[in-house]
This record gives sequence, C-alpha cells and structure tokens, in this order.
Amino acid sequence: MLEEIPSLVQLLKNLQQVPCLASKNIYRVAAHFLKMDSVKLEQFCGALRSAQEKVKQCPICFSWQEIDRGCPFCSSARRDHTIVCVVETWHELFSIEKTGGFTGLFHVLGGVICPLDGVGPEDLTIDQLERRVHDKDIKELILAMNQTPEGEATAAFIAHRLRESPVKLSCLARGIPVGSSLEYMDRLTLYKALSERRPF
Amino acid sequence: MLEEIPSLVQLLKNLQQVPCLASKNIYRVAAHFLKMDSVKLEQFCGALRSAQEKVKQCPICFSWQEIDRGCPFCSSARRDHTIVCVVETWHELFSIEKTGGFTGLFHVLGGVICPLDGVGPEDLTIDQLERRVHDKDIKELILAMNQTPEGEATAAFIAHRLRESPVKLSCLARGIPVGSSLEYMDRLTLYKALSERRPF
Repeated sequence: MLEEIPSLVQLLKNLQQVPCLASKNIYRVAAHFLKMDSVKLEQFCGALRSAQEKVKQCPICFSWQEIDRGCPFCSSARRDHTIVCVVETWHELFSIEKTGGFTGLFHVLGGVICPLDGVGPEDLTIDQLERRVHDKDIKELILAMNQTPEGEATAAFIAHRLRESPVKLSCLARGIPVGSSLEYMDRLTLYKALSERRPF
Repeated sequence: MLEEIPSLVQLLKNLQQVPCLASKNIYRVAAHFLKMDSVKLEQFCGALRSAQEKVKQCPICFSWQEIDRGCPFCSSARRDHTIVCVVETWHELFSIEKTGGFTGLFHVLGGVICPLDGVGPEDLTIDQLERRVHDKDIKELILAMNQTPEGEATAAFIAHRLRESPVKLSCLARGIPVGSSLEYMDRLTLYKALSERRPF
C-alpha cells in the first residue's frame, strides 16, 4: 500500500536515518511533518541549513561553535584554561555544562576506542589532546568518559599516552546516585561506593 | 554557553517540536544534522518539502494519499468496499495493514474523544463516517480503537450514533497476546480472556 505514496516512502527513508527515532515512531513523525503548514516547514529546513552552514567544530576542543563568534569555551576569558574535562561526545559536554559546577575547558574525543566497531585511537581526537596538553599550560585533565568498558579503556589509553607528562589526571567520582536507595543499587556500584568511601 | 551558538539554539528549538524525540535526545539528533554533508541535508529537506506538497489526506477515509495517484485504499478495486475498519490515527492503520489480514477499507478518525484535552466529536471525522455509512453500501464497521478509556468511549459514541443504521458493528478480540505467558499478564486482560473464551 505504501508503494502508492512514493513521496511518503521517500520521507520515511530519510527519517529512518535520524538517530534516536525508533522505527515505530517514524510514522508519527512523518504525520507531524505532513500536517505542518508550509511556512513552518520552511522554517524547519532553514534552521537545519543555517545550523549546518554556521556551526562548526572548534579546532582546539572539538565542541560546536558559531563560526563568526568563536568557541564559547576556548575563547572565553571567564573560564579556567588550566583545567580540561575530556568527554566522549558533545552530549556529555552539555550534561556537564548544565550542572553549572565546571568552569574549565573541554575536549571532545568524538567517541571511544571500540575495536569491534572499527574505532581506533586514530579516529578520535587523542593526538590533538596530547598536543594540547604539551603546548598549553594545562594543569589538570578530568577523564569524564562514560562508565562503560569502552569508556574506561579509552581513559586508560589516554592516561598511558600522557604518563610522561606532568599533567594531573583525575576521573569522576563513582558511587550511589543522589536520591536513590541502596536496596535497588547494583552490586558493583555499591562495592565501588564502599571501597571509595569518603570522610563524613 | 548555548546562547553563543544561536544557529544551534534555533535548530534545537525546531527539533523540540518534533514528536517522539525525547528532550535528552535532541542534542544527539542536532549533532547528526550538523555532521551531515550539505548534499544529504538538501535531500532531507527536499523529501520533507515534496512529501508535504504531494501527500494529502483522502477526503473519504482521511488516510494519506499521493494527490496525483488517488487513495491507495478507496480507489483500489482489489479491496472489499463493504467492510470499513475505523482507526484512531494513521499509525494504527499502518499497523493493521502490515498484518496482511485485512482487505477492506479504512476510516481514520484523527484521534479520540478526550474532553480533558479539549477534543470533542466535532474535532474528529465522525460526521464524515456517519455520512459514509449512510451513502455507501457498507455492511460491517470494525471499531479498532486503542484499548484505552478514551478509545473505548469513542467506540461507544460511534456505536450510539449509528444505532439506527443497519450496519454491523464489531470490535477487535481482546485476550492474551501471542507469545506471552499468563503469569505476567495483568488481571484485567486475563479476566477478559477468560470471559471471552472461544471454542478450541
């Protein structure tokens, strides 16, 4: 039945490539766009196009920047340029930034080392990070990868690469999330929270 | 920090209006579009635009049709025009169509009666359904609403409106889903499956 609505098939194919859209949901999203008035649709396409033209990765920290304004982090005088938080992707950067508890700079790796997916260290911005640590006056590097095997392996790889450097390496605290009860915590988290306990 | 990347803010605002995209995910989707090459992006916008121009609702069954081809259901000679399946939205139509077990026509209501959301019978295509039943030679109407209070209320409303009409009304069978075990079934479903049991 769908083959009789080729424009819709084309739209569905395009929506299929958008991440975070479950295949069950693309019909709902397609209906949303079909019902949109054409002015709104042009606005949407315009926003896509202008973002793609104007927003590029910063050549230093690889986070996003508006090309005619410069990087909101690297070009800011209000931020502490001696401490750099290394994150996997831009989404994690944004989560950390929203806490309001970090005023240093960032370094976006662009992913994690994952041989099964064919991602090696050369596909990430690890070389650039190493050069940045050597060239700039960076005192501390927070390795804020996700708590996954790949994330931890990537952190270990970076630590190994920087073993000769005087930079201080740190990582995020592990333990019980705020608001959660011990009863429902998994064993490993509870173990880590116990073994890395801190003075009251 | 985001206020320094206005084109990105604009894109995020537009993505926020897309249904089925959790607010956590829009950063990931935005990054997807930012990294896309401009040819692909133009293809995406072109698909949106051409779908919106060419795909319209059928004036009889309110499902989608390509304007220069006609409705894939209502204009098909291979389908049974005496039996009509009434569904809430296009997504449900598509789920039913994919089973391959239905060869009749459809009628898309456009939602359900829900006074709390301000949706009354006049916002749906119930009047058009009533006229369709009166004008065309329809023998059976399958009320295939979702099994929610609003869905059942809407089905009851339609049944009441058509009480004078000779059309046969039916609804979907309720019971245990294929492949599931009784142990994990909720009480009401099990009760319905028992009370609506059928000969082996």
